[in-house]
Amino acid sequence: MEVQHARIKNGWFTEVSDAHFPGQGFSLRVEKVLHHSQSAFQDILVFKSTDFGNVLVLDGIVQCTERDEFAYQEMITHIPIYAHKNPKKVLVIGGGDGGVIREVVKHSCVESATLVEIDKTVIELSQRYLPEMSCSISDPKVNLQFCDGFQFLRNIGSSDLDAKYDVIITDSSDPDGPAEAFFQKEYFQLLNNALREDGIVIMQASENVWLNINYLGELIQTAKSVFSNTGYCYTTVPSYTSGQLGLIVCSNEKDLRLDVAHRLPTSEEQQKMKYYNPKIHHASFILPTWADRILNTRQA
Amino acid sequence: MEVQHARIKNGWFTEVSDAHFPGQGFSLRVEKVLHHSQSAFQDILVFKSTDFGNVLVLDGIVQCTERDEFAYQEMITHIPIYAHKNPKKVLVIGGGDGGVIREVVKHSCVESATLVEIDKTVIELSQRYLPEMSCSISDPKVNLQFCDGFQFLRNIGSSDLDAKYDVIITDSSDPDGPAEAFFQKEYFQLLNNALREDGIVIMQASENVWLNINYLGELIQTAKSVFSNTGYCYTTVPSYTSGQLGLIVCSNEKDLRLDVAHRLPTSEEQQKMKYYNPKIHHASFILPTWADRILNTRQA
Repeated sequence: MEVQHARIKNGWFTEVSDAHFPGQGFSLRVEKVLHHSQSAFQDILVFKSTDFGNVLVLDGIVQCTERDEFAYQEMITHIPIYAHKNPKKVLVIGGGDGGVIREVVKHSCVESATLVEIDKTVIELSQRYLPEMSCSISDPKVNLQFCDGFQFLRNIGSSDLDAKYDVIITDSSDPDGPAEAFFQKEYFQLLNNALREDGIVIMQASENVWLNINYLGELIQTAKSVFSNTGYCYTTVPSYTSGQLGLIVCSNEKDLRLDVAHRLPTSEEQQKMKYYNPKIHHASFILPTWADRILNTRQA
Repeated sequence: MEVQHARIKNGWFTEVSDAHFPGQGFSLRVEKVLHHSQSAFQDILVFKSTDFGNVLVLDGIVQCTERDEFAYQEMITHIPIYAHKNPKKVLVIGGGDGGVIREVVKHSCVESATLVEIDKTVIELSQRYLPEMSCSISDPKVNLQFCDGFQFLRNIGSSDLDAKYDVIITDSSDPDGPAEAFFQKEYFQLLNNALREDGIVIMQASENVWLNINYLGELIQTAKSVFSNTGYCYTTVPSYTSGQLGLIVCSNEKDLRLDVAHRLPTSEEQQKMKYYNPKIHHASFILPTWADRILNTRQA
Protein backbone atom coordinates (compact mmCIF):
# COMPACT_ATOMS: atom_id res chain seq x y z
CA MET A 1 0.00 0.00 0.00
CA GLU A 2 1.45 3.40 -0.93
CA VAL A 3 0.39 5.76 1.81
CA GLN A 4 1.86 9.16 2.57
CA HIS A 5 1.69 10.47 6.11
CA ALA A 6 2.71 13.90 7.35
CA ARG A 7 4.88 12.35 10.05
CA ILE A 8 6.82 10.02 7.75
CA LYS A 9 9.86 11.53 6.03
CA ASN A 10 12.70 9.75 4.25
CA GLY A 11 11.44 6.44 5.56
CA TRP A 12 11.22 7.47 9.22
CA PHE A 13 8.14 8.14 11.34
CA THR A 14 8.73 10.90 13.91
CA GLU A 15 6.62 11.66 16.95
CA VAL A 16 6.74 15.28 18.08
CA SER A 17 4.34 17.39 20.14
CA ASP A 18 4.86 21.03 20.95
CA ALA A 19 2.02 20.80 23.44
CA HIS A 20 3.16 17.74 25.40
CA PHE A 21 6.88 17.24 24.91
CA PRO A 22 8.36 20.30 23.18
CA GLY A 23 11.83 20.16 21.73
CA GLN A 24 12.20 16.40 21.61
CA GLY A 25 11.27 13.75 19.08
CA PHE A 26 11.28 9.97 18.81
CA SER A 27 11.66 8.26 15.45
CA LEU A 28 11.14 4.75 14.15
CA ARG A 29 12.30 3.53 10.75
CA VAL A 30 9.37 2.48 8.59
CA GLU A 31 9.57 -0.71 6.60
CA LYS A 32 6.06 -0.47 5.21
CA VAL A 33 2.91 1.54 5.88
CA LEU A 34 0.12 -0.97 6.51
CA HIS A 35 -2.83 1.34 7.02
CA HIS A 36 -3.74 4.99 7.21
CA SER A 37 -7.24 6.40 7.71
CA GLN A 38 -9.24 9.02 9.45
CA SER A 39 -11.87 7.29 11.55
CA ALA A 40 -14.87 9.11 13.00
CA PHE A 41 -12.72 9.83 16.05
CA GLN A 42 -9.04 10.07 15.12
CA ASP A 43 -6.18 9.74 12.64
CA ILE A 44 -5.10 6.09 12.60
CA LEU A 45 -1.75 4.95 11.22
CA VAL A 46 -0.35 1.43 11.32
CA PHE A 47 3.11 0.70 9.98
CA LYS A 48 5.63 -2.08 10.07
CA SER A 49 8.86 -0.75 11.56
CA THR A 50 12.26 -2.22 10.83
CA ASP A 51 13.06 -2.96 14.49
CA PHE A 52 9.96 -2.54 16.69
CA GLY A 53 7.50 -4.78 14.84
CA ASN A 54 4.12 -3.33 13.85
CA VAL A 55 3.27 0.06 15.33
CA LEU A 56 -0.14 1.64 16.04
CA VAL A 57 -0.25 5.45 15.98
CA LEU A 58 -3.33 7.51 16.93
CA ASP A 59 -3.34 11.24 16.16
CA GLY A 60 0.42 11.12 15.64
CA ILE A 61 1.20 9.50 19.01
CA VAL A 62 2.63 5.96 19.28
CA GLN A 63 0.11 3.79 21.16
CA CYS A 64 2.04 0.55 21.03
CA THR A 65 4.75 -1.34 19.21
CA GLU A 66 4.94 -5.12 19.07
CA ARG A 67 8.42 -5.02 20.60
CA ASP A 68 7.63 -3.36 23.91
CA GLU A 69 3.83 -3.38 24.33
CA PHE A 70 3.94 -6.06 27.04
CA ALA A 71 5.62 -3.65 29.46
CA TYR A 72 2.57 -1.40 29.42
CA GLN A 73 -0.17 -4.04 29.14
CA GLU A 74 1.22 -6.18 31.95
CA MET A 75 1.83 -3.41 34.46
CA ILE A 76 -1.48 -1.55 33.97
CA THR A 77 -3.33 -4.88 34.30
CA HIS A 78 -1.51 -6.94 36.90
CA ILE A 79 -0.81 -4.17 39.42
CA PRO A 80 -4.50 -3.60 40.27
CA ILE A 81 -5.45 -7.26 39.85
CA TYR A 82 -2.77 -8.59 42.23
CA ALA A 83 -3.27 -5.68 44.64
CA HIS A 84 -6.92 -6.78 44.85
CA LYS A 85 -7.69 -9.69 47.13
CA ASN A 86 -10.45 -11.29 45.08
CA PRO A 87 -11.03 -9.69 41.67
CA LYS A 88 -13.84 -11.28 39.70
CA LYS A 89 -15.27 -8.57 37.50
CA VAL A 90 -13.03 -6.30 35.46
CA LEU A 91 -13.82 -3.31 33.23
CA VAL A 92 -11.40 -2.00 30.61
CA ILE A 93 -12.13 1.43 29.13
CA GLY A 94 -10.35 2.09 25.84
CA GLY A 95 -7.72 -0.42 24.86
CA GLY A 96 -9.31 -1.57 21.62
CA ASP A 97 -5.96 -3.01 20.61
CA GLY A 98 -6.79 -5.87 23.00
CA GLY A 99 -3.49 -5.89 24.87
CA VAL A 100 -4.96 -5.24 28.31
CA ILE A 101 -7.77 -7.77 27.81
CA ARG A 102 -5.17 -10.38 26.84
CA GLU A 103 -3.54 -9.83 30.25
CA VAL A 104 -6.85 -9.74 32.17
CA VAL A 105 -7.97 -13.15 30.95
CA LYS A 106 -4.71 -14.73 32.17
CA HIS A 107 -6.18 -14.51 35.68
CA SER A 108 -8.23 -17.59 36.44
CA CYS A 109 -10.01 -15.76 39.29
CA VAL A 110 -11.45 -13.20 36.87
CA GLU A 111 -14.90 -14.33 35.74
CA SER A 112 -15.82 -11.53 33.36
CA ALA A 113 -14.00 -8.77 31.53
CA THR A 114 -15.86 -5.96 29.79
CA LEU A 115 -14.04 -3.98 27.09
CA VAL A 116 -15.53 -0.59 26.21
CA GLU A 117 -14.04 0.93 23.06
CA ILE A 118 -15.43 3.94 21.22
CA ASP A 119 -13.67 3.27 17.93
CA LYS A 120 -14.49 -0.04 16.21
CA THR A 121 -11.78 0.64 13.62
CA VAL A 122 -9.08 0.26 16.28
CA ILE A 123 -10.28 -3.24 17.17
CA GLU A 124 -10.54 -4.29 13.51
CA LEU A 125 -7.07 -2.98 12.69
CA SER A 126 -5.58 -4.60 15.77
CA GLN A 127 -7.10 -7.96 14.81
CA ARG A 128 -5.50 -7.57 11.40
CA TYR A 129 -2.10 -6.06 12.23
CA LEU A 130 -1.49 -6.76 15.95
CA PRO A 131 -2.61 -10.38 16.23
CA GLU A 132 -0.58 -11.08 19.36
CA MET A 133 -2.30 -8.21 21.16
CA SER A 134 -5.85 -8.80 19.98
CA CYS A 135 -5.70 -12.59 20.42
CA SER A 136 -8.04 -12.69 23.43
CA ILE A 137 -10.77 -10.33 22.27
CA SER A 138 -13.05 -13.29 21.49
CA ASP A 139 -12.30 -15.07 24.77
CA PRO A 140 -15.59 -16.31 26.32
CA LYS A 141 -14.98 -14.16 29.42
CA VAL A 142 -14.83 -10.99 27.31
CA ASN A 143 -17.85 -8.76 26.75
CA LEU A 144 -17.24 -6.19 24.01
CA GLN A 145 -19.08 -2.85 24.05
CA PHE A 146 -18.69 -0.27 21.29
CA CYS A 147 -19.48 2.98 23.02
CA ASP A 148 -18.03 5.99 24.78
CA GLY A 149 -16.49 4.96 28.11
CA PHE A 150 -17.87 8.07 29.73
CA GLN A 151 -21.42 7.23 28.64
CA PHE A 152 -20.96 3.62 29.69
CA LEU A 153 -20.03 4.71 33.22
CA ARG A 154 -22.91 7.21 33.40
CA ASN A 155 -25.35 4.38 32.79
CA ILE A 156 -24.32 2.54 35.93
CA GLY A 157 -26.80 3.37 38.67
CA SER A 158 -25.25 4.23 41.99
CA SER A 159 -27.34 1.63 43.82
CA ASP A 160 -26.96 -1.09 41.17
CA LEU A 161 -24.31 -3.11 43.00
CA ASP A 162 -24.40 -5.98 40.49
CA ALA A 163 -23.30 -3.63 37.73
CA LYS A 164 -20.17 -2.55 39.60
CA TYR A 165 -16.59 -3.73 39.17
CA ASP A 166 -13.69 -5.01 41.26
CA VAL A 167 -11.07 -3.53 38.97
CA ILE A 168 -11.39 -0.78 36.36
CA ILE A 169 -8.53 -0.11 33.95
CA THR A 170 -8.54 3.09 31.90
CA ASP A 171 -6.42 2.36 28.86
CA SER A 172 -7.19 5.58 27.02
CA SER A 173 -5.19 7.63 24.57
CA ASP A 174 -3.80 10.99 25.69
CA PRO A 175 -5.98 13.92 26.81
CA ASP A 176 -6.09 15.51 23.37
CA GLY A 177 -8.83 14.30 21.11
CA PRO A 178 -11.51 11.81 22.15
CA ALA A 179 -9.86 10.92 25.48
CA GLU A 180 -9.79 14.44 26.93
CA ALA A 181 -12.65 13.81 29.35
CA PHE A 182 -10.78 10.89 30.95
CA PHE A 183 -8.51 13.33 32.76
CA GLN A 184 -11.19 15.41 34.51
CA LYS A 185 -12.68 15.18 37.99
CA GLU A 186 -16.08 14.07 36.69
CA TYR A 187 -14.44 10.98 35.22
CA PHE A 188 -12.89 10.01 38.55
CA GLN A 189 -16.31 10.44 40.14
CA LEU A 190 -17.87 8.15 37.55
CA LEU A 191 -15.14 5.58 38.16
CA ASN A 192 -15.78 5.84 41.87
CA ASN A 193 -19.47 5.20 41.33
CA ALA A 194 -18.79 2.18 39.11
CA LEU A 195 -16.45 0.57 41.62
CA ARG A 196 -17.30 -1.98 44.30
CA GLU A 197 -16.47 -0.96 47.84
CA ASP A 198 -13.06 -2.68 47.85
CA GLY A 199 -12.41 -2.04 44.17
CA ILE A 200 -9.28 -0.66 42.53
CA VAL A 201 -8.98 1.71 39.59
CA ILE A 202 -5.90 2.30 37.45
CA MET A 203 -5.40 4.76 34.60
CA GLN A 204 -2.57 5.67 32.28
CA ALA A 205 -1.51 9.17 33.30
CA SER A 206 -0.33 10.23 29.80
CA GLU A 207 2.60 11.76 31.67
CA ASN A 208 5.73 10.76 33.52
CA VAL A 209 7.99 12.38 36.10
CA TRP A 210 10.36 13.73 33.43
CA LEU A 211 7.73 15.63 31.49
CA ASN A 212 5.04 17.89 32.88
CA ILE A 213 5.35 16.82 36.51
CA ASN A 214 3.21 19.69 37.72
CA TYR A 215 0.32 18.61 35.50
CA LEU A 216 0.88 15.07 36.78
CA GLY A 217 0.76 16.35 40.35
CA GLU A 218 -2.54 18.11 39.63
CA LEU A 219 -3.99 14.96 38.09
CA ILE A 220 -3.04 13.03 41.23
CA GLN A 221 -4.62 15.76 43.38
CA THR A 222 -7.83 15.40 41.35
CA ALA A 223 -7.75 11.65 41.98
CA LYS A 224 -7.17 12.29 45.69
CA SER A 225 -10.16 14.61 45.84
CA VAL A 226 -12.34 11.62 44.89
CA PHE A 227 -10.55 8.53 46.28
CA SER A 228 -9.23 8.09 49.81
CA ASN A 229 -6.22 6.03 48.68
CA THR A 230 -4.15 7.02 45.65
CA GLY A 231 -0.72 5.95 44.43
CA TYR A 232 1.57 6.66 41.49
CA CYS A 233 3.74 4.09 39.74
CA TYR A 234 5.29 3.71 36.31
CA THR A 235 6.41 1.25 33.70
CA THR A 236 9.38 1.53 31.34
CA VAL A 237 8.49 1.53 27.64
CA PRO A 238 11.18 2.66 25.18
CA SER A 239 8.71 3.75 22.49
CA TYR A 240 6.94 6.16 24.87
CA THR A 241 8.29 9.65 25.48
CA SER A 242 11.07 9.62 28.12
CA GLY A 243 10.99 5.81 27.98
CA GLN A 244 8.39 5.51 30.70
CA LEU A 245 4.70 6.04 31.41
CA GLY A 246 3.00 6.89 34.67
CA LEU A 247 0.01 5.03 36.09
CA ILE A 248 -2.38 6.35 38.75
CA VAL A 249 -3.94 3.76 41.06
CA CYS A 250 -6.91 4.54 43.30
CA SER A 251 -9.07 2.80 45.86
CA ASN A 252 -11.42 3.68 48.68
CA GLU A 253 -9.88 1.12 51.02
CA LYS A 254 -7.76 3.52 52.98
CA ASP A 255 -5.41 0.95 54.45
CA LEU A 256 -4.92 -1.17 51.36
CA ARG A 257 -1.27 -1.16 50.24
CA LEU A 258 -1.60 -0.54 46.49
CA ASP A 259 2.16 -1.06 46.06
CA VAL A 260 1.99 -4.67 47.23
CA ALA A 261 0.83 -7.81 45.44
CA HIS A 262 -1.64 -9.23 47.97
CA ARG A 263 -1.91 -12.44 45.97
CA LEU A 264 1.15 -13.99 44.34
CA PRO A 265 1.04 -15.12 40.71
CA THR A 266 0.67 -18.88 40.39
CA SER A 267 3.64 -20.44 38.61
CA GLU A 268 1.42 -20.88 35.55
CA GLU A 269 0.48 -17.19 35.62
CA GLN A 270 4.09 -16.06 36.19
CA GLN A 271 5.18 -18.21 33.27
CA LYS A 272 2.94 -16.15 30.98
CA MET A 273 4.38 -12.82 32.10
CA LYS A 274 7.42 -11.16 30.58
CA TYR A 275 7.48 -7.94 32.64
CA TYR A 276 5.37 -8.16 35.80
CA ASN A 277 6.49 -9.84 38.99
CA PRO A 278 5.64 -8.96 42.62
CA LYS A 279 9.02 -7.31 43.21
CA ILE A 280 8.68 -4.94 40.27
CA HIS A 281 5.09 -4.25 41.33
CA HIS A 282 6.51 -2.79 44.54
CA ALA A 283 9.57 -1.16 42.93
CA SER A 284 7.45 0.66 40.35
CA PHE A 285 6.00 2.88 43.14
CA ILE A 286 9.45 4.04 44.28
CA LEU A 287 10.40 7.37 42.76
CA PRO A 288 13.50 9.51 42.42
CA THR A 289 13.71 12.08 45.19
CA TRP A 290 12.54 15.17 43.31
CA ALA A 291 9.51 13.35 41.88
CA ASP A 292 8.69 11.76 45.23
CA ARG A 293 8.71 15.21 46.85
CA ILE A 294 6.29 16.60 44.27
CA LEU A 295 3.97 13.63 43.82
CA ASN A 296 3.89 11.80 47.14
CA THR A 297 4.42 14.30 49.90
CA ARG A 298 2.01 17.07 48.94
CA GLN A 299 -1.05 17.63 51.07
CA ALA A 300 -4.09 15.70 49.91
CA MET B 1 28.71 30.69 15.98
CA GLU B 2 27.60 29.22 12.66
CA VAL B 3 28.50 25.57 12.77
CA GLN B 4 27.14 22.86 10.53
CA HIS B 5 27.02 19.30 11.85
CA ALA B 6 26.04 16.19 9.94
CA ARG B 7 23.52 15.26 12.63
CA ILE B 8 21.71 18.63 12.68
CA LYS B 9 18.95 19.10 10.10
CA ASN B 10 16.25 21.74 10.00
CA GLY B 11 17.19 22.86 13.47
CA TRP B 12 17.05 19.38 15.08
CA PHE B 13 19.92 17.20 16.28
CA THR B 14 19.19 13.49 15.78
CA GLU B 15 20.99 10.59 17.42
CA VAL B 16 20.92 7.37 15.39
CA SER B 17 23.19 4.33 15.38
CA ASP B 18 22.76 1.37 13.09
CA ALA B 19 25.29 -0.52 15.18
CA HIS B 20 23.79 0.04 18.64
CA PHE B 21 20.11 0.94 18.29
CA PRO B 22 19.01 0.32 14.73
CA GLY B 23 15.71 1.68 13.51
CA GLN B 24 15.16 4.26 16.24
CA GLY B 25 16.24 7.85 16.69
CA PHE B 26 16.07 10.51 19.38
CA SER B 27 15.99 14.20 18.45
CA LEU B 28 16.46 17.44 20.33
CA ARG B 29 15.62 20.87 18.93
CA VAL B 30 18.72 23.04 18.64
CA GLU B 31 18.56 26.65 19.74
CA LYS B 32 22.22 27.36 19.03
CA VAL B 33 25.36 25.39 18.29
CA LEU B 34 27.94 26.41 20.90
CA HIS B 35 30.93 24.36 19.81
CA HIS B 36 32.01 21.79 17.27
CA SER B 37 35.48 20.33 16.92
CA GLN B 38 37.41 17.20 16.29
CA SER B 39 39.71 16.62 19.24
CA ALA B 40 42.62 14.18 19.13
CA PHE B 41 40.18 11.50 20.32
CA GLN B 42 36.66 12.24 19.13
CA ASP B 43 34.07 14.47 17.45
CA ILE B 44 32.81 16.94 20.08
CA LEU B 45 29.58 18.90 19.69
CA VAL B 46 27.99 21.17 22.26
CA PHE B 47 24.66 22.84 21.55
CA LYS B 48 22.01 24.73 23.46
CA SER B 49 18.72 22.88 23.06
CA THR B 50 15.35 24.56 23.32
CA ASP B 51 14.12 22.32 26.16
CA PHE B 52 16.97 20.23 27.61
CA GLY B 53 19.52 22.96 28.36
CA ASN B 54 23.03 22.59 26.99
CA VAL B 55 23.90 19.23 25.48
CA LEU B 56 27.29 17.49 25.11
CA VAL B 57 27.60 15.04 22.21
CA LEU B 58 30.66 12.82 21.62
CA ASP B 59 30.94 10.96 18.30
CA GLY B 60 27.26 11.64 17.64
CA ILE B 61 26.02 10.18 20.95
CA VAL B 62 24.40 12.36 23.64
CA GLN B 63 26.58 12.24 26.78
CA CYS B 64 24.51 14.53 28.93
CA THR B 65 21.94 17.28 28.90
CA GLU B 66 21.56 19.87 31.64
CA ARG B 67 17.94 18.82 32.17
CA ASP B 68 18.46 15.20 33.14
CA GLU B 69 22.19 14.71 33.85
CA PHE B 70 21.64 14.41 37.61
CA ALA B 71 19.84 11.09 37.16
CA TYR B 72 22.98 9.50 35.77
CA GLN B 73 25.60 11.29 37.89
CA GLU B 74 23.81 10.65 41.16
CA MET B 75 23.07 6.98 40.62
CA ILE B 76 26.49 5.96 39.26
CA THR B 77 28.13 7.80 42.18
CA HIS B 78 25.94 7.28 45.22
CA ILE B 79 25.11 3.60 44.69
CA PRO B 80 28.72 2.40 45.21
CA ILE B 81 29.53 5.06 47.80
CA TYR B 82 26.54 4.27 50.05
CA ALA B 83 26.91 0.52 49.47
CA HIS B 84 30.46 0.89 50.82
CA LYS B 85 30.82 1.02 54.60
CA ASN B 86 33.72 3.47 54.77
CA PRO B 87 34.74 4.99 51.42
CA LYS B 88 37.66 7.39 51.67
CA LYS B 89 39.45 7.20 48.35
CA VAL B 90 37.56 7.37 45.07
CA LEU B 91 38.74 7.06 41.46
CA VAL B 92 36.68 8.30 38.52
CA ILE B 93 37.76 7.15 35.05
CA GLY B 94 36.38 9.28 32.23
CA GLY B 95 33.74 11.79 33.20
CA GLY B 96 35.62 14.92 32.15
CA ASP B 97 32.34 16.80 32.22
CA GLY B 98 32.74 16.80 36.02
CA GLY B 99 29.26 15.57 36.88
CA VAL B 100 30.40 12.48 38.78
CA ILE B 101 33.12 14.37 40.66
CA ARG B 102 30.50 16.93 41.73
CA GLU B 103 28.54 14.08 43.35
CA VAL B 104 31.61 12.40 44.87
CA VAL B 105 32.69 15.51 46.80
CA LYS B 106 29.25 15.77 48.41
CA HIS B 107 30.34 12.91 50.68
CA SER B 108 32.15 14.26 53.70
CA CYS B 109 33.69 10.81 54.37
CA VAL B 110 35.51 10.89 51.02
CA GLU B 111 39.00 12.30 51.52
CA SER B 112 40.31 12.23 47.97
CA ALA B 113 38.84 11.89 44.49
CA THR B 114 41.03 11.29 41.45
CA LEU B 115 39.61 12.13 38.02
CA VAL B 116 41.35 10.50 35.05
CA GLU B 117 40.28 11.95 31.70
CA ILE B 118 42.03 11.30 28.40
CA ASP B 119 40.59 14.33 26.60
CA LYS B 120 41.44 17.74 28.07
CA THR B 121 39.06 19.40 25.59
CA VAL B 122 36.07 17.77 27.31
CA ILE B 123 36.99 19.33 30.65
CA GLU B 124 37.59 22.75 29.12
CA LEU B 125 34.29 22.69 27.22
CA SER B 126 32.40 21.51 30.26
CA GLN B 127 33.85 24.35 32.34
CA ARG B 128 32.64 26.74 29.69
CA TYR B 129 29.28 25.29 28.70
CA LEU B 130 28.21 22.98 31.57
CA PRO B 131 29.12 25.08 34.60
CA GLU B 132 26.72 23.25 36.93
CA MET B 133 28.38 19.94 36.11
CA SER B 134 32.00 21.05 36.18
CA CYS B 135 31.61 23.20 39.30
CA SER B 136 33.61 20.88 41.59
CA ILE B 137 36.58 20.08 39.33
CA SER B 138 38.75 22.49 41.32
CA ASP B 139 37.58 21.22 44.70
CA PRO B 140 40.61 20.69 46.98
CA LYS B 141 39.77 16.97 47.30
CA VAL B 142 40.03 16.50 43.53
CA ASN B 143 43.18 15.33 41.83
CA LEU B 144 43.01 15.74 38.05
CA GLN B 145 45.01 13.44 35.74
CA PHE B 146 45.05 13.86 32.00
CA CYS B 147 45.79 10.38 30.73
CA ASP B 148 44.33 7.15 29.44
CA GLY B 149 42.38 5.39 32.21
CA PHE B 150 43.72 2.07 31.05
CA GLN B 151 47.32 3.27 31.38
CA PHE B 152 46.56 4.86 34.72
CA LEU B 153 45.32 1.53 36.09
CA ARG B 154 48.27 -0.39 34.61
CA ASN B 155 50.63 1.80 36.63
CA ILE B 156 49.16 0.68 39.94
CA GLY B 157 51.38 -2.07 41.33
CA SER B 158 49.50 -5.06 42.69
CA SER B 159 51.27 -4.84 46.04
CA ASP B 160 51.05 -1.06 46.34
CA LEU B 161 48.12 -0.98 48.77
CA ASP B 162 48.31 2.77 49.33
CA ALA B 163 47.65 3.39 45.65
CA LYS B 164 44.39 1.43 45.70
CA TYR B 165 40.83 2.71 45.91
CA ASP B 166 37.66 2.11 47.93
CA VAL B 167 35.38 3.00 45.04
CA ILE B 168 36.14 3.17 41.31
CA ILE B 169 33.58 4.69 38.93
CA THR B 170 33.97 4.15 35.19
CA ASP B 171 32.15 7.03 33.54
CA SER B 172 33.29 6.27 30.00
CA SER B 173 31.66 6.87 26.66
CA ASP B 174 30.33 3.89 24.71
CA PRO B 175 32.52 1.02 23.46
CA ASP B 176 33.08 2.56 20.04
CA GLY B 177 36.00 4.92 19.77
CA PRO B 178 38.40 5.66 22.62
CA ALA B 179 36.37 3.82 25.27
CA GLU B 180 36.31 0.41 23.54
CA ALA B 181 38.87 -1.14 25.91
CA PHE B 182 36.68 -0.34 28.93
CA PHE B 183 34.35 -3.18 28.02
CA GLN B 184 36.92 -6.01 27.87
CA LYS B 185 38.02 -8.56 30.47
CA GLU B 186 41.47 -7.02 30.83
CA TYR B 187 39.86 -3.81 32.02
CA PHE B 188 37.91 -5.62 34.74
CA GLN B 189 41.16 -7.27 35.83
CA LEU B 190 42.88 -3.89 36.04
CA LEU B 191 39.96 -2.52 38.08
CA ASN B 192 40.21 -5.53 40.35
CA ASN B 193 43.91 -4.89 40.89
CA ALA B 194 43.33 -1.21 41.67
CA LEU B 195 40.64 -1.93 44.25
CA ARG B 196 41.07 -2.33 48.00
CA GLU B 197 39.91 -5.64 49.42
CA ASP B 198 36.45 -4.37 50.36
CA GLY B 199 36.21 -1.96 47.42
CA ILE B 200 33.35 -1.47 44.98
CA VAL B 201 33.51 -0.78 41.25
CA ILE B 202 30.70 0.60 39.08
CA MET B 203 30.65 1.18 35.32
CA GLN B 204 28.14 2.47 32.83
CA ALA B 205 27.14 -0.54 30.73
CA SER B 206 26.40 1.47 27.54
CA GLU B 207 23.36 -0.80 27.28
CA ASN B 208 20.00 -1.38 28.89
CA VAL B 209 17.56 -4.28 29.09
CA TRP B 210 15.56 -3.04 26.09
CA LEU B 211 18.48 -2.93 23.67
CA ASN B 212 21.11 -5.59 23.16
CA ILE B 213 20.36 -7.62 26.28
CA ASN B 214 22.51 -10.52 25.14
CA TYR B 215 25.56 -8.29 24.84
CA LEU B 216 24.68 -6.91 28.27
CA GLY B 217 24.47 -10.44 29.63
CA GLU B 218 27.92 -11.22 28.19
CA LEU B 219 29.38 -8.07 29.74
CA ILE B 220 28.00 -9.14 33.12
CA GLN B 221 29.47 -12.61 32.63
CA THR B 222 32.85 -11.01 31.92
CA ALA B 223 32.52 -9.02 35.15
CA LYS B 224 31.56 -12.21 37.01
CA SER B 225 34.64 -14.00 35.69
CA VAL B 226 36.76 -11.43 37.56
CA PHE B 227 34.68 -10.36 40.59
CA SER B 228 32.97 -12.69 43.07
CA ASN B 229 29.99 -10.34 43.56
CA THR B 230 28.31 -8.59 40.63
CA GLY B 231 24.99 -6.79 40.27
CA TYR B 232 23.07 -4.92 37.59
CA CYS B 233 20.98 -1.82 38.16
CA TYR B 234 19.78 1.09 36.08
CA THR B 235 18.84 4.74 36.12
CA THR B 236 16.15 6.47 34.06
CA VAL B 237 17.45 9.22 31.76
CA PRO B 238 15.09 10.48 29.02
CA SER B 239 17.88 11.68 26.72
CA TYR B 240 19.51 8.22 26.64
CA THR B 241 18.28 5.53 24.26
CA SER B 242 15.24 3.70 25.70
CA GLY B 243 15.13 6.30 28.48
CA GLN B 244 17.41 4.31 30.77
CA LEU B 245 21.02 3.25 31.20
CA GLY B 246 22.40 0.13 32.85
CA LEU B 247 25.11 0.13 35.51
CA ILE B 248 27.27 -2.85 36.48
CA VAL B 249 28.44 -2.98 40.12
CA CYS B 250 31.19 -5.33 41.29
CA SER B 251 32.97 -6.23 44.48
CA ASN B 252 35.04 -9.06 45.91
CA GLU B 253 33.14 -9.08 49.19
CA LYS B 254 30.95 -12.03 48.41
CA ASP B 255 28.31 -11.34 51.04
CA LEU B 256 28.04 -7.58 50.58
CA ARG B 257 24.55 -6.57 49.45
CA LEU B 258 25.31 -4.16 46.61
CA ASP B 259 21.60 -3.31 46.30
CA VAL B 260 21.45 -1.85 49.81
CA ALA B 261 22.66 1.51 51.14
CA HIS B 262 24.75 0.41 54.13
CA ARG B 263 25.09 3.99 55.29
CA LEU B 264 22.16 6.40 55.09
CA PRO B 265 22.60 9.88 53.60
CA THR B 266 22.80 12.56 56.27
CA SER B 267 19.97 15.05 55.95
CA GLU B 268 22.47 17.55 54.56
CA GLU B 269 23.59 15.04 51.92
CA GLN B 270 20.01 14.05 51.04
CA GLN B 271 19.13 17.71 50.66
CA LYS B 272 21.70 18.00 47.86
CA MET B 273 20.33 15.03 45.91
CA LYS B 274 17.55 15.24 43.36
CA TYR B 275 17.43 11.59 42.26
CA TYR B 276 19.16 9.24 44.70
CA ASN B 277 17.62 7.98 47.90
CA PRO B 278 18.13 4.63 49.67
CA LYS B 279 14.78 3.28 48.44
CA ILE B 280 15.57 3.93 44.78
CA HIS B 281 19.04 2.49 45.34
CA HIS B 282 17.36 -0.81 46.15
CA ALA B 283 14.57 -0.51 43.56
CA SER B 284 17.05 0.14 40.74
CA PHE B 285 18.29 -3.47 41.03
CA ILE B 286 14.81 -4.93 40.51
CA LEU B 287 14.20 -5.91 36.91
CA PRO B 288 11.27 -6.89 34.74
CA THR B 289 10.88 -10.66 34.57
CA TRP B 290 12.40 -11.32 31.15
CA ALA B 291 15.47 -9.21 31.94
CA ASP B 292 15.85 -10.73 35.39
CA ARG B 293 15.82 -14.21 33.83
CA ILE B 294 18.58 -13.30 31.37
CA LEU B 295 20.79 -11.13 33.58
CA ASN B 296 20.40 -12.43 37.12
CA THR B 297 19.71 -16.13 36.95
CA ARG B 298 22.38 -17.33 34.53
CA GLN B 299 25.20 -19.46 35.80
CA ALA B 300 28.26 -17.48 36.85
